[in-house]
Amino acid sequence: MDLIKNLLKGDKLSIARVISQVEDDTGYDILDRIYPYTGNAYHIGITGPPGAGKSTLVNAIAKKLLRESYKIGIIAVDPTSPFSGGALLGDRIRMGDLSLQKNVFIRSMATRGSLGGLSKKTKDVALVLDAAGMDYILIETVGVGQVELDIAQVCDTKIVVLVPESGDSIQAMKAGLLEIADIVVVNKGDREGSDSLLIELKFAFDLKPKTGWRVPILKTIATDDSGIDELVKEIGNHKEYLEKSDEIKKLQKMRILNQIHEYIETEIKRHLRETVIDDKELDRYIEKIMERKVSPYKIARKIMENMLKGG
Amino acid sequence: MDLIKNLLKGDKLSIARVISQVEDDTGYDILDRIYPYTGNAYHIGITGPPGAGKSTLVNAIAKKLLRESYKIGIIAVDPTSPFSGGALLGDRIRMGDLSLQKNVFIRSMATRGSLGGLSKKTKDVALVLDAAGMDYILIETVGVGQVELDIAQVCDTKIVVLVPESGDSIQAMKAGLLEIADIVVVNKGDREGSDSLLIELKFAFDLKPKTGWRVPILKTIATDDSGIDELVKEIGNHKEYLEKSDEIKKLQKMRILNQIHEYIETEIKRHLRETVIDDKELDRYIEKIMERKVSPYKIARKIMENMLKGG
Repeated sequence: MDLIKNLLKGDKLSIARVISQVEDDTGYDILDRIYPYTGNAYHIGITGPPGAGKSTLVNAIAKKLLRESYKIGIIAVDPTSPFSGGALLGDRIRMGDLSLQKNVFIRSMATRGSLGGLSKKTKDVALVLDAAGMDYILIETVGVGQVELDIAQVCDTKIVVLVPESGDSIQAMKAGLLEIADIVVVNKGDREGSDSLLIELKFAFDLKPKTGWRVPILKTIATDDSGIDELVKEIGNHKEYLEKSDEIKKLQKMRILNQIHEYIETEIKRHLRETVIDDKELDRYIEKIMERKVSPYKIARKIMENMLKGG
Repeated sequence: MDLIKNLLKGDKLSIARVISQVEDDTGYDILDRIYPYTGNAYHIGITGPPGAGKSTLVNAIAKKLLRESYKIGIIAVDPTSPFSGGALLGDRIRMGDLSLQKNVFIRSMATRGSLGGLSKKTKDVALVLDAAGMDYILIETVGVGQVELDIAQVCDTKIVVLVPESGDSIQAMKAGLLEIADIVVVNKGDREGSDSLLIELKFAFDLKPKTGWRVPILKTIATDDSGIDELVKEIGNHKEYLEKSDEIKKLQKMRILNQIHEYIETEIKRHLRETVIDDKELDRYIEKIMERKVSPYKIARKIMENMLKGG
């Protein structure tokens, strides 16, 4: 098929079309067909609280990698990202600038409205970008929800972005975020409090048990590219570490296992919706449950047993 | 069993124990047994961006309802909530004060670490509190992740809390949040910009198609209880509206359907983990997938077909 041929060449229109088809979720023929061409892209997750400047950082990293002649895919799962249309007009124009470049493809994922499936869809889009020959896929997620964190977790290098003014309400979040971090960035490093945040973070990481990789804690001012060279260098170091230590294989395995599970879940939900549950029967059950004659758990168990019997 | 008898009487220690048992997830015997005693609590969801003062508002609402002699359950799904230990010491002490009162039970839900199941667990805890005789269950969620929003969505009255300084990065979020709102609160109403935010919101809601319920847009300063009386009054109005219009039945049905679905999903995942997938076989599959000889989708389909055949 021409569409897939053109996708593999990195044609932007074809990428967009394949993504639409994948999102429509009608069968997995295309994913099956592009799958042999995936496995070459390096996945970088950028996560942190709203307002940490993640998109500006993604922008700066992408520009640096572009200058090194790499092809870049960007996926924004963050509802507050300018990539997904959630910020000031000025920001959006600045980002738009990047999207016009030949070797960049930007895709934003809706985090509202769709009931579930966000995690799976994001990873499917990443596969399409992988097949399209992207060297790096940058995935921006807001580090609050579980789904978003789960997406970050399947990336090869996970960057956690914080800002001094994140404030105390972010404290609780930080602990969880820092656990997944391969690189920590204190962005807006010219603002008051950034040095003490840096020291605090270094202290916290010094207390942790040593592993093969020491988490670098960097200061950036993404708006004027300050610190970006060093950040990209550390991404390279982490990539090298993963490759040498064979950790990269573990990550790839995890990603595959994850895909298998998510696909099974999606298909089972569809199966339940389409074939097992009879609407009228379900309505009768719900009536009984509302009268508290039976619990939803009993009914669910019954439906499931029917399904497993080939119902 | 004494434990359940004591739970039904509202004994705090028994509530905590039953919640632990429910969270351990070993069978649904307890949920089945308490289910006949549920269906009486009114569920209020409080959601909004981090830093909007949701916990302080929950605190103020709870205190007001306590003075009216109601029993209150509070569930904090927000990782930045002081109820779940995520804020300044001062805040935590203020909240702790509430937890010492006889007719209040506070439970925070971990939003990190657990891979999935948060939504189901939250609703299970709500059922326990319902059976324990709570008149109102207040559920605080941060309005960013999908799971958290999904939890808010099954509440009877959904309150969306915003603050003027939420800033542009929150704009994108607002649209999605406001769609689920039954009541909108502009908190920290003494700060600059709150009046213009109020006007902006009123304008936005005026443009929406009319339904039976007009969404009130209120200003509060939760830290000194300002506006709380009116807010609680509007909660009462909304409750009355739901009851008179029979909308409450629809919500209850939705909640039950939701429970059935979530229970089925949980059980299917367990079933897959425990019986269908052989680890060694899976390892072999993953090797093949890593060599790109087959796609994860094909393997997933195979596993699923085996399961449906009673495998």
